[in-house]
Amino acid sequence: MQDPAYREGVVDLLGALAYGELTAFERLAEDAKMAPDTHDKAALAAMASAEFGHFEALRARLRELDADVDEAMAPFVAAVDSFHDMTTPSDWLEGLVKAFVGDALANDFYREVAAYVDVDTRELILATLADSGHSAFVVDRVRGAIAADPRIGGRLALWGRRLVGEALSQAQAVVADRDSLSALLAGTVDRPGMDLATIGRMFVRLTEAHADRMATLGLAS
Amino acid sequence: MQDPAYREGVVDLLGALAYGELTAFERLAEDAKMAPDTHDKAALAAMASAEFGHFEALRARLRELDADVDEAMAPFVAAVDSFHDMTTPSDWLEGLVKAFVGDALANDFYREVAAYVDVDTRELILATLADSGHSAFVVDRVRGAIAADPRIGGRLALWGRRLVGEALSQAQAVVADRDSLSALLAGTVDRPGMDLATIGRMFVRLTEAHADRMATLGLAS
Repeated sequence: MQDPAYREGVVDLLGALAYGELTAFERLAEDAKMAPDTHDKAALAAMASAEFGHFEALRARLRELDADVDEAMAPFVAAVDSFHDMTTPSDWLEGLVKAFVGDALANDFYREVAAYVDVDTRELILATLADSGHSAFVVDRVRGAIAADPRIGGRLALWGRRLVGEALSQAQAVVADRDSLSALLAGTVDRPGMDLATIGRMFVRLTEAHADRMATLGLAS
Repeated sequence: MQDPAYREGVVDLLGALAYGELTAFERLAEDAKMAPDTHDKAALAAMASAEFGHFEALRARLRELDADVDEAMAPFVAAVDSFHDMTTPSDWLEGLVKAFVGDALANDFYREVAAYVDVDTRELILATLADSGHSAFVVDRVRGAIAADPRIGGRLALWGRRLVGEALSQAQAVVADRDSLSALLAGTVDRPGMDLATIGRMFVRLTEAHADRMATLGLAS
């Protein structure tokens, strides 16, 4: 944290994660309105509330670093909002798939990135991402809907592809646009970072894990 | 809890509170979307998250009583949804006033009612309602907006009156419609309840406390 460029990169990273969690809270809470009954509404609300807990932990770490939380999030508002605007679920099932694969994809990405930051920041990120254990409910609902009407599987598979496409395109735009964040990921002479081959391998891992999750839901990817 | 009629009344009461908290979560989260900046968005999201915590506590108590949570909430869905549909904030400030006075009015009502139930249920209700401490933020924003444009005060004062009117009218409809809930409040030979004079005094206390809160916001009531 003595190196100002490094600190700036970490603040950027935490700011991006924090705004991501805050909007995840907001969108999940909104999707909860589409729930067919109060039980499912409560289940999605619990996922939303867990995201808000993550936001609070990230905000606390930003404050520890004497960063202005709102300034730290500001550079990422446009990209994250765009992602959500481009992927607004049109029904309850699309909301569930987004909650399940979107959240997990973001978590995988954060875990990858966490390898390139200091121990304290890494531990916070990993703790933030601890599985909230609500996903069994999503798997049950999506598989049940496909069993009842197999055509739903085709539509949701396309939806899953769109989610990943938008997520990767916004993530790419953010990293390209933020020098401090790309510098953090690229590393320095003293601190190893990601070269292009590493980034390529990371993308392979992310998309493979995504395909596994789609399969868990009974969906092609 | 040995008396089936009493148990049914308590399950009704907890069900009403639980659905109220679940929808409060949902509506506050939705209102957070209108926040002018990420700081205020996070503040309203924190209030929403606290409501979800209340919901979880009430749900746990319903399960302890071997009640089906969704069945317990079902009789109150229509009235609570109506209340929210009739009082959808048209802007950020209306959302803040609703969060502040609506939440507090509901809490006052629950506290009054808690006097007529067993110790365990009462302690849970009172713990659920412990002030989440986010209201200073609302007071600051509403007073600031009125200072900047005094005409806003007139509009928000009308809004506050509408909130209370709708809340009381839905609450009255619910109690009139649910025999087990009215029986709980009316009491029995062995268990003192509320007579009409008591209910009248309760309404006076509720509206006085509401007027105090409106004054705290700088609003006529």
